[in-house]
Amino acid sequence: MRPDGEASHPNGGAAESRVARLAAAVPALDRGAEAAARRRQAQLVKPAGSLGRLEELGVRLAAMAGRCPPPVPDSPAVLVAAGDHGVVAQGVTPWPQSVTSAMIGAMTAGVAAVNAIAGVIGAEVQLLDVGVAAAPPPHPMVRAANVRRGTADLAVEQAMTRGQAARALLAGAEAAGALLDAGADLLVTGDMGIGNTTPAACLTAAFTGRAPSAVTGRGTGIDDATWELKVKVVARALARHAPDPGDPLGALASVGGLEHAALAGLLLAGAARRVPVLLDGVNANAAALVACALEPRVTGFLIAGHRSVEPGAGVALDHLGLTPLVDLQMRLGEGTGALLAVPIVRAAAAVLGGMATFAEAGLEAGNG
Amino acid sequence: MRPDGEASHPNGGAAESRVARLAAAVPALDRGAEAAARRRQAQLVKPAGSLGRLEELGVRLAAMAGRCPPPVPDSPAVLVAAGDHGVVAQGVTPWPQSVTSAMIGAMTAGVAAVNAIAGVIGAEVQLLDVGVAAAPPPHPMVRAANVRRGTADLAVEQAMTRGQAARALLAGAEAAGALLDAGADLLVTGDMGIGNTTPAACLTAAFTGRAPSAVTGRGTGIDDATWELKVKVVARALARHAPDPGDPLGALASVGGLEHAALAGLLLAGAARRVPVLLDGVNANAAALVACALEPRVTGFLIAGHRSVEPGAGVALDHLGLTPLVDLQMRLGEGTGALLAVPIVRAAAAVLGGMATFAEAGLEAGNG
Repeated sequence: MRPDGEASHPNGGAAESRVARLAAAVPALDRGAEAAARRRQAQLVKPAGSLGRLEELGVRLAAMAGRCPPPVPDSPAVLVAAGDHGVVAQGVTPWPQSVTSAMIGAMTAGVAAVNAIAGVIGAEVQLLDVGVAAAPPPHPMVRAANVRRGTADLAVEQAMTRGQAARALLAGAEAAGALLDAGADLLVTGDMGIGNTTPAACLTAAFTGRAPSAVTGRGTGIDDATWELKVKVVARALARHAPDPGDPLGALASVGGLEHAALAGLLLAGAARRVPVLLDGVNANAAALVACALEPRVTGFLIAGHRSVEPGAGVALDHLGLTPLVDLQMRLGEGTGALLAVPIVRAAAAVLGGMATFAEAGLEAGNG
Repeated sequence: MRPDGEASHPNGGAAESRVARLAAAVPALDRGAEAAARRRQAQLVKPAGSLGRLEELGVRLAAMAGRCPPPVPDSPAVLVAAGDHGVVAQGVTPWPQSVTSAMIGAMTAGVAAVNAIAGVIGAEVQLLDVGVAAAPPPHPMVRAANVRRGTADLAVEQAMTRGQAARALLAGAEAAGALLDAGADLLVTGDMGIGNTTPAACLTAAFTGRAPSAVTGRGTGIDDATWELKVKVVARALARHAPDPGDPLGALASVGGLEHAALAGLLLAGAARRVPVLLDGVNANAAALVACALEPRVTGFLIAGHRSVEPGAGVALDHLGLTPLVDLQMRLGEGTGALLAVPIVRAAAAVLGGMATFAEAGLEAGNG
């Protein structure tokens, strides 16, 4: 019998039940708080609509929090979910798999992009080994919750079992829960995993119905020949597994990555606690498609942080009805793009809480 | 003899000479530091180009600072230059002139949008009365440097004299200098003044050669009839004064506002001290056209913070060759849009200083 008991529960039954309970715990948005925020927005000392998208974001934050004004997040945390991918055997990336571990080393040493950007944003950085091939050395920044040491090659077999997909999802949810228990009030998705844009493309195609060429990008910057190969690998995987958008765990198991599963869990856990979650890029957005297929109410708690250069990222956001806050043509991952949107989220909440209304300021509103 | 000595110096000779000296003090960008930053950017532990526009911004910051890595700004300050406008007599806005003073009151009370947003960004807020019609009560946040209590109606006469334009510009430069002396290391433009998008449109048309209808916006949100009237007022002012882009102080005097002059001074003063300046919106961008006409080297120290909804804002940025960092469809002014770009500027500098190179991390770079 395997340690996860899958021999006796071929569908990972216990873990799958816990995923279903987590999804069921996601609340609806609070329409009363939303309406109150919209009313207040119209009364603040500024021309109506002059704060643009910041106004709608503030209204959404109130609906998520269930109160108006919403709290201003002051303890953001980024969870960098890390995993490896058997599909690198197909030649979809020029980077060796060992770079995943090496970058975890750079992050624990504080010298990766996510550290630099989280530092100026004031966000905590937490790493999650949910699927790294080579076990990272123990480190206070690394949460060890490895479900398997890298996926199988999705081009030729299932990436993982359903039970592993469910347990990787729960590992992400538990990591998010620990961050929230420690005081985090805004979650940011991060990811690290050589080859992970290939499963992201597969998931995005599976849940949106778009063609492989429309959702497959250049990842770290591959050339034309490698991109064409990558599109074929994605097409072949979709043809082989026929992932069903009505069975999100099955889709994850057949063509996903362990970090995509973990991020889907983070999104569910944040939403279940009414905490907003900022999506970073193509991997987070693929995870969001999974989480929202498990429970559509999750979408209400998601904020698209950055518009990744990866085409699949935009396809996923369009499907979810989300528009990114920032567009700086980034495509690094690690959470770097979404971190730059944290101050915008904070500002949107601060405006609702900190500004006076015309009445409070003893002023009359103009007509325009 | 008038207090500013203009009876004996009809062209405001002394002030104008000081403006010329300030402009001459703006240094060239440091091409050596720029090249060093570009080299370092290519060696950092990330796929080449994967941080998108953040990479080019980091290179620019190095060129401004004259060193690589550039310092990470940790004391941003927003200067809200405030003035009133005689052109409101033409009916270009539904808001009464008294709102300028009332909003200064809201800002000193800490309940305006700029306070809420500066609070989450960690920026100091300083107000400058350079041209408010009703003298604001003394307050520690308000720097009193009033040059005249509102401009004349530019539709029928010069908005101000050349000497007043020069002195308003110097008032902004001195306010910026005081902020820099107190430790500010990143300046953000702010503005407050009922009616100020009309002189902004006039200045933008004068310096870019674009038609009044292409540079005139809806300001606080005027209706079609008021917009058409506003376009006519702008066209009439341009026809009457024929402002010469080769004579920036003359253009300011004929069709500008006192806060536009002050912001032009802030830009010159920041550039002269190699400090980056973030532009907020249509009024700041009009001021940038003035400052860059006085001394083209200023452009190198300007960063477009936010893409204002006002059409003239984009026209001015295109003319200056600047692309905004953030686009949230805002049009409030006060510095609110540019403040949201402060963390992006900080992140761009932090990446260059805080990330390791592949060699430092003991890693080999991939090909893509």
